[in-house]
Amino acid sequence: MHIKYTTERIFDILGADCIAVGEYEGEITGIASLSEGVTGDLSFLGNSKYRSCLENSEASVILVSLDCEELPKKGQIYIKSENPSYALALICRDIENNLTPKPEAGIHPSAIIESGAQVSPNASIGAFCYIASGAQVGGAVLESHVSIGRGASVADEAYLFSRVSVGDYCEIGPRNRLMAGCVIGSDGYGYELIENAHLRVPQLGNVVTDADVDIGANTCIDRARFGSTHIGLGTKIDNQVQIAHNVKVGKHCLIVAQVGISGSVVLGDGVVIGGQSGIAGHLKIGTGAMIAAGTSVFVDIEPQGKARGYPAMPMMQFNRIAVLQRKLPDFFKRFDQLEKTVNSFIK
Amino acid sequence: MHIKYTTERIFDILGADCIAVGEYEGEITGIASLSEGVTGDLSFLGNSKYRSCLENSEASVILVSLDCEELPKKGQIYIKSENPSYALALICRDIENNLTPKPEAGIHPSAIIESGAQVSPNASIGAFCYIASGAQVGGAVLESHVSIGRGASVADEAYLFSRVSVGDYCEIGPRNRLMAGCVIGSDGYGYELIENAHLRVPQLGNVVTDADVDIGANTCIDRARFGSTHIGLGTKIDNQVQIAHNVKVGKHCLIVAQVGISGSVVLGDGVVIGGQSGIAGHLKIGTGAMIAAGTSVFVDIEPQGKARGYPAMPMMQFNRIAVLQRKLPDFFKRFDQLEKTVNSFIK
Amino acid sequence: MHIKYTTERIFDILGADCIAVGEYEGEITGIASLSEGVTGDLSFLGNSKYRSCLENSEASVILVSLDCEELPKKGQIYIKSENPSYALALICRDIENNLTPKPEAGIHPSAIIESGAQVSPNASIGAFCYIASGAQVGGAVLESHVSIGRGASVADEAYLFSRVSVGDYCEIGPRNRLMAGCVIGSDGYGYELIENAHLRVPQLGNVVTDADVDIGANTCIDRARFGSTHIGLGTKIDNQVQIAHNVKVGKHCLIVAQVGISGSVVLGDGVVIGGQSGIAGHLKIGTGAMIAAGTSVFVDIEPQGKARGYPAMPMMQFNRIAVLQRKLPDFFKRFDQLEKTVNSFIK
Repeated sequence: MHIKYTTERIFDILGADCIAVGEYEGEITGIASLSEGVTGDLSFLGNSKYRSCLENSEASVILVSLDCEELPKKGQIYIKSENPSYALALICRDIENNLTPKPEAGIHPSAIIESGAQVSPNASIGAFCYIASGAQVGGAVLESHVSIGRGASVADEAYLFSRVSVGDYCEIGPRNRLMAGCVIGSDGYGYELIENAHLRVPQLGNVVTDADVDIGANTCIDRARFGSTHIGLGTKIDNQVQIAHNVKVGKHCLIVAQVGISGSVVLGDGVVIGGQSGIAGHLKIGTGAMIAAGTSVFVDIEPQGKARGYPAMPMMQFNRIAVLQRKLPDFFKRFDQLEKTVNSFIK
Repeated sequence: MHIKYTTERIFDILGADCIAVGEYEGEITGIASLSEGVTGDLSFLGNSKYRSCLENSEASVILVSLDCEELPKKGQIYIKSENPSYALALICRDIENNLTPKPEAGIHPSAIIESGAQVSPNASIGAFCYIASGAQVGGAVLESHVSIGRGASVADEAYLFSRVSVGDYCEIGPRNRLMAGCVIGSDGYGYELIENAHLRVPQLGNVVTDADVDIGANTCIDRARFGSTHIGLGTKIDNQVQIAHNVKVGKHCLIVAQVGISGSVVLGDGVVIGGQSGIAGHLKIGTGAMIAAGTSVFVDIEPQGKARGYPAMPMMQFNRIAVLQRKLPDFFKRFDQLEKTVNSFIK
Repeated sequence: MHIKYTTERIFDILGADCIAVGEYEGEITGIASLSEGVTGDLSFLGNSKYRSCLENSEASVILVSLDCEELPKKGQIYIKSENPSYALALICRDIENNLTPKPEAGIHPSAIIESGAQVSPNASIGAFCYIASGAQVGGAVLESHVSIGRGASVADEAYLFSRVSVGDYCEIGPRNRLMAGCVIGSDGYGYELIENAHLRVPQLGNVVTDADVDIGANTCIDRARFGSTHIGLGTKIDNQVQIAHNVKVGKHCLIVAQVGISGSVVLGDGVVIGGQSGIAGHLKIGTGAMIAAGTSVFVDIEPQGKARGYPAMPMMQFNRIAVLQRKLPDFFKRFDQLEKTVNSFIK
């Protein structure tokens, strides 16, 4: 990552709401954490857990919150703002645009667009992409080896990284980001046991994603049995997540890596699911619910509910029980002692 | 999903064993669940959990079981059969054949067939497929970006979705369905610790799948150290499953998403493994055993056994203990009270 | 697997440190486990768990340890060495070189090398590979459908299987083996909540792997927010592992399938993580620590620590508690009995 920024450029990006304390006249040539930062680096205090690293940081420019009481060293500048993490995000967006500029519109000569497919002149179609008959691709970016199925659609400003598959008839919304290797529209896992063999139940539906959805690398979203598996506006899905057929995910949910969501589950808006959690079929997870990492959910969760454990229970209850479980060895001893006392007394 | 069916066509598909109650004269233009169905939709009552939705359903044609006592509304028809889920599957199969017809035989001009590879004239080879030297592909369908390794084989009527990899010398059975992104024949994970470094143990075997196996999206099946990792007849594997080297899977097993099976495990016939479960190396899982979702198995399971928990135990035992764990906070209090009572009495 | 070896060839491979007991004059035509081996097979006793299989094995040539007291049958040879597993690995390496010879150097005519990319004349670039501008590929093997991003690099003797993606600016070390479908350099999962929507935090860093790293099929390693996600020398990562942004993995670690490691975690050298375990963000796992399969880690682990459970605790403690949990049903009964006794006595 080779960057070259002046502090003036940083102030331009952040706008009027930030306050400078101290002075640094050199160039900004890198970004690093507080403890790793050296002269020329931009750093930040986004999580109060790292407050103790601030004092000793060698970074030249440090983003801090408005209520930060520490003072910069000589030759160091603190830039105070309400939300230093957001400030960093703005700066990074600017760097990103320079580092990985959006590919130009056009179709790579090696790509194959079947007859009957429609591709916007604003689209950038990478090497070895395959766009099947009846598909529609808007002003989106497709990196290399992307496959778009029959009758599928990709909306404007979507970005599909290398080796994404969008299955037949699936619909990808505007400004979606689909990471490498994700599979949209694989068959739902549905079988009927007929004469001791599993007969596949055809999966006739599709996957529909609303605007501003992110889907992680190697994540899979199955097509609905009929109708649509649906991902709501602004929901962000991490890597290696499995979303089964007919799931409905609300708006602005966060689904962390390796989560598995079984068929026909309904997630309300703003649900947060920690990594490696699983949700059994046909359950309802209420709006704003939070599921801790590694939880296995076998019952509905009410709105704003917090769940944890195997099987899931209210988080407070889980935490209480986890403490008591660790006391079991001592507890068994206390019981044995009491039993002995009682028995000897009775005799 | 645009469909157009008459009720007569439905009766043709289902055959003589179904009974009609009520009447609907319009066209069938969609399929939906009982609660979402509207006029023109076909719906079904496959799971008694949804019985209460039947009465208020607006669907025009509803598949129900023979013993269903409810009666259709005016302009609505109930089609009764022994297994309405199976009836639906038959109808859906017919729709599927219309919606996503099997690609025609032939080799896409962009595909590369290395010299020494054999491809059946009945095969349909998609764009950007790569078939290595010595490979044999029968009358199968390969969608785009499929890779078939040296000396590997794919039998008749197999269907390989976009971006499937079949590694060197692996053998895919007849009528297998391999979902997008799955990897058959990756190296087994085997190392010897030699002078503090991990020396890779060559993995010389392959993967062999019998007929009628389904393999989910982004699932991985490792090649054997030597001999074969083997998947038995009719077994259905969901997305993101990991099957390690030398595993033997029996016939007609169901392996749900994100399950991990360690090296040299042997599964009997008809084993069912719930999502996100894991099985430690070298274990035997008996015929007909069931492993609940999210279970971690560290011991053999007897035939027909039911296991659950971390670490796995008999399901009845797990369920009993799970109830008692939730009583621990109260239990600790009762104990403290009893201890106090005894101690004060003794004094 | 068709092989043809003489016992003399085996002795050549193993060198002077092995001792022969018994005699076998035929050819070696296969490798099999003790119980499956037949005449002509090479077998081995690598794990004392299988000692009982030795006596009845029909294999013709069997690798055993120096202290093995059993004697071969007539027409059977035992080859004794200090580490029979290592001996087998040496033999298998020789077989592997014959079975799947390294592809010749050269660029497949279908591959696309963008202008500004540098490819070594010693590289073997497979069908449909895409190498973006600014990328550098040394004397490595790329199978089919591999994608190398802008400014990324692949060092000498790396082997990238089919459908590997190496993202922009990522650096793959010498002698790495990247299994099919793995994704190096996907975006880290980082968002800021701004006005009730999740704003993506740009991920400006890369992934750097040291020498001799193996990465499993469909594994994902996210690029750092800034700086590098780093995988240390000789570390071996299994299939479907998720490694989040800014993680630092030490040297010679083993990370088994389906493990998830959250952002900014630091693993010391020689850490071993069992399958399906998860590690929460920003934790430190000390050198030589072992984490049992299926564990969810929410606290730091000290060097040489052994952890197990949900949430993770010291393994000894977990095992003790697991035993007591199974006694809970009986324990509750004993308590009820004691309570009754006390109460009736007091009355």
